Amino acid sequence: MRAPEGEFPLIAADILGRLRQLRPRVHCVTNAVAQTFTANILLAVGAMPTMTIAPDEVADFVRGADAMLVNLGTLDASRREAIGIAIDKASELGVRWIFDPVFIDRSQGRAIFAEALVRMRPTAMHLNDREFLTIAASRATATAAARYARDVGAVIALTGETDLVTDGAKSIRIANGHPWMSLVTAMGCAGAGLVAACLAVEPDPWRATGTGVLALSIAGEIAAETARGPGSLATGIIDALHRLDRTDLLARARFA
Amino acid sequence: MRAPEGEFPLIAADILGRLRQLRPRVHCVTNAVAQTFTANILLAVGAMPTMTIAPDEVADFVRGADAMLVNLGTLDASRREAIGIAIDKASELGVRWIFDPVFIDRSQGRAIFAEALVRMRPTAMHLNDREFLTIAASRATATAAARYARDVGAVIALTGETDLVTDGAKSIRIANGHPWMSLVTAMGCAGAGLVAACLAVEPDPWRATGTGVLALSIAGEIAAETARGPGSLATGIIDALHRLDRTDLLARARFA
Amino acid sequence: MRAPEGEFPLIAADILGRLRQLRPRVHCVTNAVAQTFTANILLAVGAMPTMTIAPDEVADFVRGADAMLVNLGTLDASRREAIGIAIDKASELGVRWIFDPVFIDRSQGRAIFAEALVRMRPTAMHLNDREFLTIAASRATATAAARYARDVGAVIALTGETDLVTDGAKSIRIANGHPWMSLVTAMGCAGAGLVAACLAVEPDPWRATGTGVLALSIAGEIAAETARGPGSLATGIIDALHRLDRTDLLARARFA
Repeated sequence: MRAPEGEFPLIAADILGRLRQLRPRVHCVTNAVAQTFTANILLAVGAMPTMTIAPDEVADFVRGADAMLVNLGTLDASRREAIGIAIDKASELGVRWIFDPVFIDRSQGRAIFAEALVRMRPTAMHLNDREFLTIAASRATATAAARYARDVGAVIALTGETDLVTDGAKSIRIANGHPWMSLVTAMGCAGAGLVAACLAVEPDPWRATGTGVLALSIAGEIAAETARGPGSLATGIIDALHRLDRTDLLARARFA
Repeated sequence: MRAPEGEFPLIAADILGRLRQLRPRVHCVTNAVAQTFTANILLAVGAMPTMTIAPDEVADFVRGADAMLVNLGTLDASRREAIGIAIDKASELGVRWIFDPVFIDRSQGRAIFAEALVRMRPTAMHLNDREFLTIAASRATATAAARYARDVGAVIALTGETDLVTDGAKSIRIANGHPWMSLVTAMGCAGAGLVAACLAVEPDPWRATGTGVLALSIAGEIAAETARGPGSLATGIIDALHRLDRTDLLARARFA
Repeated sequence: MRAPEGEFPLIAADILGRLRQLRPRVHCVTNAVAQTFTANILLAVGAMPTMTIAPDEVADFVRGADAMLVNLGTLDASRREAIGIAIDKASELGVRWIFDPVFIDRSQGRAIFAEALVRMRPTAMHLNDREFLTIAASRATATAAARYARDVGAVIALTGETDLVTDGAKSIRIANGHPWMSLVTAMGCAGAGLVAACLAVEPDPWRATGTGVLALSIAGEIAAETARGPGSLATGIIDALHRLDRTDLLARARFA
């Protein structure tokens, strides 16, 4: 499990360049709190987000998408139905998707639904320690994350003070970020959206996932240098992602 | 089809002045991503937005409104029902409304629903080239827009690099704006909301529509002068709209 | 009804300190326009917000919460059901809640529903003059607010140019704030969320309610000193709340 940290900033710069050039469509089935921030994060890096969650329409939007985000939240009957339709359509068409099982540690019904979604084979999963514990029934160690990645066949992005990204064979641990990022609602949800955008333009899902996580963490660091608190940090992250380039990535990327 | 560009900044200044003085109520039936930004744009110019989309309540809110926005998006069964109720009530009471058929090029069901709404006689429509092509079955030229305006009896605001506003007889083409505006989610939706506010205080729907489009484009230009990216641009547009005055409009308005 | 204004800034500083230390969970059943801003306001002061409104899930989230916000808005059948479930669970477990009957003056159905919720015994209520008139059937005077507080057994926060907070015995009238605060959508809704957070860490509901109202008003004043309009004010309030300390409270609190 050697982590090729040295090359990673160049890989990430290349993927971000492709995002701006190819402008992939990313369909987001995400919660009400996250929708606006996620859409703005995606637009800032060049992706074209759509956000509908209506069961009647979602298949049309998945059909036109290059990648998809599925984030749990405000999980009513209609949204459950929309998620099922969206994933069925994505599977049929080979559209890759990232799964963000937000707050499954707070609701058993949500945890059971999340387990069913994992069996539908997401390309990547984005979750924190408590969510990992709930779904993998194991403490969130690097070894456990790599094993779970192999078991479910998905890249695992385990977020926290440092962020671990593993596909079970390759792993990288990203040390960038700023504490105020955890004080902005839907920061993780938007990060998962960014990964979805990278999955649309990069064949290797581990590289794509690592790039999304790294880009957001570095943008957070840059924004924190001029922010006066979590309000201006949120605005500044969108600005920083829009400008983020190879020089920033090479100068700032830190791995643990 | 002479365009009276010279007078337009003064007309717009007068309409914005009335908005601040009369504080019209604008009811917005709009999508989840756009709701907060649209409400803040409306409050910044002096209007009083309400945003409920519950079928049980929407008629009460339309009854108290001076104008209405109908924007498609996250179009589930309940929202379709609410839109129908809202438009019926608006027609009964003579409340003017602007229709923003967002993303009808992505979903056939949405396109069919949009066609039915056009037959319910919106006062104005706000759409981009792809949406125009879908609903008017014609390329988005100035001639086609003017013809469509006459056919459906609505002012057409065709947005893009320059924005065309036509009622079929009078036309104006606004050249203000900034490329980052297209990187802020719901910018067009909020622009349609601004038009709704102008329709509440200006009898001539073409003048009202042109004023809403012009005000947002100039506010975007002003905001871009100090913004560091699309995040601070969004914040700055709200600030700029709040301060926008006759001097700004006269100095900055540009027509193509 | 002596108002102990002199001590209040110290009381408020103490409550804000506990918020940052204890990081209470606050479940918010609030409207779509308010969700993101409310969550960010709560995170800025140290609270941990959850926002789900799905009837299937809401009881699980209330069970894990230290206090709750119930705000009307986009009140469809499913949300009415969720509110009922949430309040029943809160009553069963002794979770305190604040009720914000937003826009009950605009919809009779909403007013009737609000009256039923008042009978379910909120710990506090947060409303403006028009909403007070609708629900208390009386003009919004200090005497009427105190009487209504005693009648319904809740602390009443009556917001306006000055904000009155009364439990029927003790009253305080807060003179801080800035006119631009009324131009930011969901400012009052977020203020009610802040009160919910204070209710989670302070046994005296009058002190908790006054602290939430005072903190937001002072943060608004601080933000207005550098804001360029209502857009940057909204961002600045989040920043100011995050930094707000005893010195700010002592130096700035003003009572009418």
